[in-house]
Amino acid sequence: MYRTHTCGELNIKHVNTSVTLSGWVQKNRALGGMIFIDLRDRYGITQLSFHQTHQEKAFNIAKEASRESVVKITGKVIERESKNKNLPTGDIEVLVDELAVLSKAKIPPFTILEDTDGGEEDRMKYRYLDLRRPNVQEKIILRSKMAIEIRNFLNNAHFLEIETPFLIKSTPEGARDFVVPSRMNPTEFYALPQSPQTFKQLLMVSGFDRYFQIVRCFRDEDLRADRQPEFTQLDCEMAFVTQEDVLQTFEALTKHMFETFLNKTLEDFPRMPYKEAIENYGSDKPDLRFDMIFKDLSSDFKGQGFQVFDKAEIILGIAVDQAANYSRKQIDGLTDFVKKPQIGAKGMVYVKYLEDGSIKSSIDKFFTQTQLQKILEIHKVKKGQALFILAGQVASTRKALGELRLHIGKNIIGVDSEIFKPLWVTDFPLLEYNEEHNKWHAMHHPFTSPKQEDLHLLDSEPHLARANAYDLVVNGVELGGGSIRIHQSDLQEKVFEAIGFTKQEAKKQFGFLMDAFTYGAPPHGGIAFGFDRWVSLFSHSDSIREVIAFPKNNMGKDVMINAPSKIDQEQLNELALEVKA
Amino acid sequence: MYRTHTCGELNIKHVNTSVTLSGWVQKNRALGGMIFIDLRDRYGITQLSFHQTHQEKAFNIAKEASRESVVKITGKVIERESKNKNLPTGDIEVLVDELAVLSKAKIPPFTILEDTDGGEEDRMKYRYLDLRRPNVQEKIILRSKMAIEIRNFLNNAHFLEIETPFLIKSTPEGARDFVVPSRMNPTEFYALPQSPQTFKQLLMVSGFDRYFQIVRCFRDEDLRADRQPEFTQLDCEMAFVTQEDVLQTFEALTKHMFETFLNKTLEDFPRMPYKEAIENYGSDKPDLRFDMIFKDLSSDFKGQGFQVFDKAEIILGIAVDQAANYSRKQIDGLTDFVKKPQIGAKGMVYVKYLEDGSIKSSIDKFFTQTQLQKILEIHKVKKGQALFILAGQVASTRKALGELRLHIGKNIIGVDSEIFKPLWVTDFPLLEYNEEHNKWHAMHHPFTSPKQEDLHLLDSEPHLARANAYDLVVNGVELGGGSIRIHQSDLQEKVFEAIGFTKQEAKKQFGFLMDAFTYGAPPHGGIAFGFDRWVSLFSHSDSIREVIAFPKNNMGKDVMINAPSKIDQEQLNELALEVKA
Repeated sequence: MYRTHTCGELNIKHVNTSVTLSGWVQKNRALGGMIFIDLRDRYGITQLSFHQTHQEKAFNIAKEASRESVVKITGKVIERESKNKNLPTGDIEVLVDELAVLSKAKIPPFTILEDTDGGEEDRMKYRYLDLRRPNVQEKIILRSKMAIEIRNFLNNAHFLEIETPFLIKSTPEGARDFVVPSRMNPTEFYALPQSPQTFKQLLMVSGFDRYFQIVRCFRDEDLRADRQPEFTQLDCEMAFVTQEDVLQTFEALTKHMFETFLNKTLEDFPRMPYKEAIENYGSDKPDLRFDMIFKDLSSDFKGQGFQVFDKAEIILGIAVDQAANYSRKQIDGLTDFVKKPQIGAKGMVYVKYLEDGSIKSSIDKFFTQTQLQKILEIHKVKKGQALFILAGQVASTRKALGELRLHIGKNIIGVDSEIFKPLWVTDFPLLEYNEEHNKWHAMHHPFTSPKQEDLHLLDSEPHLARANAYDLVVNGVELGGGSIRIHQSDLQEKVFEAIGFTKQEAKKQFGFLMDAFTYGAPPHGGIAFGFDRWVSLFSHSDSIREVIAFPKNNMGKDVMINAPSKIDQEQLNELALEVKA
Repeated sequence: MYRTHTCGELNIKHVNTSVTLSGWVQKNRALGGMIFIDLRDRYGITQLSFHQTHQEKAFNIAKEASRESVVKITGKVIERESKNKNLPTGDIEVLVDELAVLSKAKIPPFTILEDTDGGEEDRMKYRYLDLRRPNVQEKIILRSKMAIEIRNFLNNAHFLEIETPFLIKSTPEGARDFVVPSRMNPTEFYALPQSPQTFKQLLMVSGFDRYFQIVRCFRDEDLRADRQPEFTQLDCEMAFVTQEDVLQTFEALTKHMFETFLNKTLEDFPRMPYKEAIENYGSDKPDLRFDMIFKDLSSDFKGQGFQVFDKAEIILGIAVDQAANYSRKQIDGLTDFVKKPQIGAKGMVYVKYLEDGSIKSSIDKFFTQTQLQKILEIHKVKKGQALFILAGQVASTRKALGELRLHIGKNIIGVDSEIFKPLWVTDFPLLEYNEEHNKWHAMHHPFTSPKQEDLHLLDSEPHLARANAYDLVVNGVELGGGSIRIHQSDLQEKVFEAIGFTKQEAKKQFGFLMDAFTYGAPPHGGIAFGFDRWVSLFSHSDSIREVIAFPKNNMGKDVMINAPSKIDQEQLNELALEVKA
């Protein structure tokens, strides 16, 4: 037997008990005729004491027990002289009679502590050691607990977890697929799923009614920050539901998760149409932890001879608390921020409304104090605030000001990490224009239903048609999104047409789905959550990488196992493939 | 709103309630001025009645509501005149006021009933319709319920479900990998996991202690009956455990599942060393639902001048109840059975021990009645039984007699489908000889630890070394298997050597694991269950295909979505691949 107890469970009640423990040597301190070892496992830390006079043999082995070695001990629980109130086991220690080193450790490449001296690369290469750090381990444990909680919640709500295939068909729509050559069907390939979308819809056609799956999905994208080639989705679908049913069901799940894991009781989530989110926050995933709603200043500032404003399609500003006190340097910093290529503004105008009622601005040449004061008052800017203004083409100005708003909110004003502001963004456009491919794309995916009242726009002005699509956003992070789907074969055909599929292409790619709709298909809809993002939010992580046991790096590589890698020529031959060097 | 109730919940208590239901038209019968529709959903069937005089509009729509169409109705629950005791909703019907056809169905390609007229191919092509059949649907629902039950059982036992990567590294060991070309790392490939073996071991090295995962695995094998290229494994690993700990833990899980889903309380599982299983049953997964333990007759029958016996390495027989009465034709049938190429015996000898004490055999020429009677008595063959005897080379004779035993047990004597006979087969050999590759292979996998007392054999007679490996077998089906792993770098190296890995190959393929063992690795072991097989056993299915929502056919094809399929030249170019026609 390797243990009678874990390293996290012994306390004052166990005094005088004989115990066997196994674990890792976290610390090893010699004090004259005594040695103290902190023994660690997943459940906690227990202090072991070795007395030379009590058991010389164990004492001598303990001397050599290097950090991170795995040992097994037998001894008696005794009360500690100096108790450690920060440790659940801090009232006791184990006076060791016998010690066996089960596995001796070399010096690890970095320290196994909350704060490590290991760089990113080393920690990824030795991920199995990184995962020993308690703060890293906690995230993986939280992930596990969140998954089972979600499963039980949905199971209680009569959802069935149904597994869908991983070896499916490649589709040109959307992001790039990972493909898998078929040896048994040479020259043909499977694709790994980007999501189980069509399968979950077929399950609704089959009558399964309420489906979910916590499932791996794959996207062969150029990896930006916080993207992984494989990621985990909580994928859900319901039949005989309206959008309202879906939102209610998953708002309840979300609230339950916040309650269970963060001890937060959330109010009902506000709803915000996409149009409003874009107009007021410059983003379809507004961070509601701070205000700074966009003010449209176009009519106020135009026509006064200031070229930058006069030429602009739109002039937008945000009023920022206490910004009247911002220094020249701070303002320059903000201007530099908006002029960064990824933000793309040409410059920033400021109008400070000082506490004494005076106004300082970067456009004093073009506007009188009276003019400015009037504008500030119309837009309810308060003394002590400053108005930061961007002008230009509509979409890019909104986007840039949205970024500025986030920058000020997060990095200057600052946010309380314990505040969570969820909302539903609704009424997304059905289509969006893809500049790269020069054609209309489905904004959500081509199975999303248009709003009944916008159906007539599909022929005339398809870009104006709104969809029954919704996103769940928390603190500016999109946790999930979904839609009510099309369940009619003819409407599905029409939407395919709108995004430039010929009838043949549509039939070839998704014929099975359109066929399915002709044999009695229920109205249905659903949602998919980024499970990695959800865990990341709940564990205050900076990146989804921190909540994945074995993540890939920015090049899609697992540097620990060294994947991907070359394969044998024999394997290539069997697959009827040739690699072009 | 699409429904106030499901089609499975209305009963006599709901009489006079106004309800809205949605579902599929299972049956539509017109009786003069009345129409009866059986409305079906996942939860049950409710009878709807339409009276021409009550609501002519609804009546007229109902006339046209074809089978499998999706409809929504509103009406009042009334007590039925002729109740249907076989249906939970059989006491009531809904008198319909309003009917809307939500989705009109074409005539389906086969009938949606327990017994369908659809052939295998059609049912796979229209799997979404096949899944509507209640008996098919039940299996998928059982699967879902089994998965959540397993998860909660293991969660309560402090196991963590931890997700491991799907895009990993190809290894030449074992079965063929499916590979995934990497676009970002041209000429390199990921492999899809055959199991999360090395990752779960690393999780033990990380200190996670108790891991499980219900996870998809992939094997690119030529598909025999009941194999799928992708299958689901319940994968488990524990640290600081002995073999006994693992067996106890998963025996408890197995018993819990039998109790929960089949209402069966199982006795403690017997243990049987591999050697005994092979010697007594000719199989490492003996079906204990019937006896017919092998009798070694070599010393009894040899040296009496019968060439077939005299030349044989071994002579084995089974005593079969009531087989003394088998007809000539039945005996010929058994002889034909053992002579089939896949069984491979040259012939079969029988010795019938008739109720009157006389003996009839196919070897009367070589053995006297007295000789035979003595042998029958030594081996405790009873009157009414017959001894069926095979002779030849040891391994093939055992295998053939094992098949004969199963054939007689299942197809002649017959088994009660409600009887379940589990056992643990233990002490597997560490290595087995692979004729095809002309070298030693790891029988379980190369991470399995040899028995301490057999360690010395590794250098001298590696084929005699036994492993700490075990299988769970129920009714002749291997439900799962596992082992205590190697956790020492040097022993791991030695085992790699025994299976013909050079040091370089071992380091290249599994260097990360051997490295991990040098930083403090706990003793650990685990088990993996074929989840598909488990569900298949519990649902009395003939094939794992029946318990997979969207299975592949024998060519690894999904005929519903038509995968695998060709991909674009552009996609191939991006992957730096060329397909050889």
